Amino acid sequence: MDNKIKLSHGDGGIHTHQLINDVFYKYYGSPAAMGTPDSFVFNHTDSCKLAYTTDSFVVKPLFFRGGDIGKLAVCGTVNDLAACGAMPLYLSAAFLIEEGFSIEMLCGIAKSMGEVCRHTGTRIVTGDTKVVEKGSLDGIFINTSGIGVVSGFYEPRQVEPGDELIITGGIAEHGTCILIDRYELDIITGLESDCAPMCNLVSGLQEELKYIKLMKDPTRGGIAMVLNEITRGSGIDIELYEECIPVKSEVQAINDMLGIDPMYLACEGRMLIAVQKGYGESILQHIKTLNNCREARIIGKFASGSHGMVYMNTRIGGRRIIPVLEGNILPRIC
Amino acid sequence: MDNKIKLSHGDGGIHTHQLINDVFYKYYGSPAAMGTPDSFVFNHTDSCKLAYTTDSFVVKPLFFRGGDIGKLAVCGTVNDLAACGAMPLYLSAAFLIEEGFSIEMLCGIAKSMGEVCRHTGTRIVTGDTKVVEKGSLDGIFINTSGIGVVSGFYEPRQVEPGDELIITGGIAEHGTCILIDRYELDIITGLESDCAPMCNLVSGLQEELKYIKLMKDPTRGGIAMVLNEITRGSGIDIELYEECIPVKSEVQAINDMLGIDPMYLACEGRMLIAVQKGYGESILQHIKTLNNCREARIIGKFASGSHGMVYMNTRIGGRRIIPVLEGNILPRIC
Repeated sequence: MDNKIKLSHGDGGIHTHQLINDVFYKYYGSPAAMGTPDSFVFNHTDSCKLAYTTDSFVVKPLFFRGGDIGKLAVCGTVNDLAACGAMPLYLSAAFLIEEGFSIEMLCGIAKSMGEVCRHTGTRIVTGDTKVVEKGSLDGIFINTSGIGVVSGFYEPRQVEPGDELIITGGIAEHGTCILIDRYELDIITGLESDCAPMCNLVSGLQEELKYIKLMKDPTRGGIAMVLNEITRGSGIDIELYEECIPVKSEVQAINDMLGIDPMYLACEGRMLIAVQKGYGESILQHIKTLNNCREARIIGKFASGSHGMVYMNTRIGGRRIIPVLEGNILPRIC
Repeated sequence: MDNKIKLSHGDGGIHTHQLINDVFYKYYGSPAAMGTPDSFVFNHTDSCKLAYTTDSFVVKPLFFRGGDIGKLAVCGTVNDLAACGAMPLYLSAAFLIEEGFSIEMLCGIAKSMGEVCRHTGTRIVTGDTKVVEKGSLDGIFINTSGIGVVSGFYEPRQVEPGDELIITGGIAEHGTCILIDRYELDIITGLESDCAPMCNLVSGLQEELKYIKLMKDPTRGGIAMVLNEITRGSGIDIELYEECIPVKSEVQAINDMLGIDPMYLACEGRMLIAVQKGYGESILQHIKTLNNCREARIIGKFASGSHGMVYMNTRIGGRRIIPVLEGNILPRIC
């Protein structure tokens, strides 16, 4: 490992995992002490499992089409809980603010946070505010942590060949909006970030959660990185079908123009769901009735293979590897 | 309220409270939704109460005599839980790191965190790492949140005249060490920050917690600000006795030299404890047997009064008000 932190140490990919293993696991104690990447689930009583998670938000710009850092901070933590099959119960919100920051903007951010809380039936119950001198921090960063109650129906387990993969909506919309707004691209589009809470998947599916083997929200690194994380070292491959992957034509066009593959761009209101073999279609039909999930699609399946690779079966009949990328396509996406 | 964030909005005093009321309470929802200042306590089951808290750390310098930002981050959250009568169970740790930060320093910080965790029997179970580009953040900031189990013996309640006030050790040692190290004062002293976990008060006192009415760790703003917070709007005064307040001679000398009142400087390993009238001396004797509490003292008592003021009865027989200060004596203390 080099002796300096690089931007890629924060992108959720290989370097982040190296840092977690070589620094945090090593010095905190055993790897098990860190729990799952998204949330830690613990049996608090025999009858109740709680999930616990944390996330910091450094998105740039703070306000973007379809959201702001406040909406993102609440949705991000709610979605990490949802990925564990948990309904959010309580959140914390800690602000790091640069001296001179606009209080009007802070009000806008807090308002967004309150709105998502009310919408999802959760509450911010503890907080902290630190202000640092001008120049020591770029505007405002937010940390949220959350506690949720895990649904008794949800039992995450090992995926197997034949299990099906669902995405709950179009990909890369958040990442593309950040690109447009950060670089002030001169594009006329009605596109908005997909940033949204996804706990309605947990409350809406209920008993059908039994047939779900795992859920992951594809944020940093997009669905490409998350799928690679799932297959890594598993000895199971993933076969994706290009024509099934929902990419809005505007998203595709903007990314083509910039030379970026939307497979690697963040979603902030989508869930990747691995469904037990044979239940994909029925679960999909149910998911499509849920708010914010009307564009859900089965995008591929797990297949036997010894490489733990993600393959894309292209529209024109080809087949290519979706590799793990080193480094950051777009830092400060969330 | 001015339209810009000031440093004092982050010092835990009047301006912080204004910001919480005018922005966070207003937009999140009802004031009750924010819980107590330190931690939020909720009944998870009939037989079990959990406490939940969050804190961010921006201390400067990152390494100081007696600790570093990592030790501080774990102790701070453990102590907020302890102030609610809770033993820490699980912690989260989220890092915001500037590109180019030394990985060796990060290892030192993580090592300190692991040490306090092992010492207190808690575990970091979920985390997050974000890296921002050079110049967007001053080195490293850490957020920790924590979940603890509240002792069944502890029932915080309203203080009354006659109740006694204990401090578990010498004051202002953390703040003084930060002063020396930040401004590289040319002082030869063995003084170290008091930064330490205080959950042994909860595990060590057990049944005696019944006689404790409230606990507060006097961090930002020192014991002066915390005592004013307790009396504010209560209609009860506090009478302190100067000769009883434990201030190390070195702390006093350095603060005299700088013109700072140690009453306003942070402790990071001390607890202010309000004890039911008549139980002060017996609780004190027990506290003094606990690790890190040998210098505990009764420093004053609650008195009937309609002003909600904090009074200092001086060594020479005078009596002065310990006022609430506006603004920051020392920003980035924790």
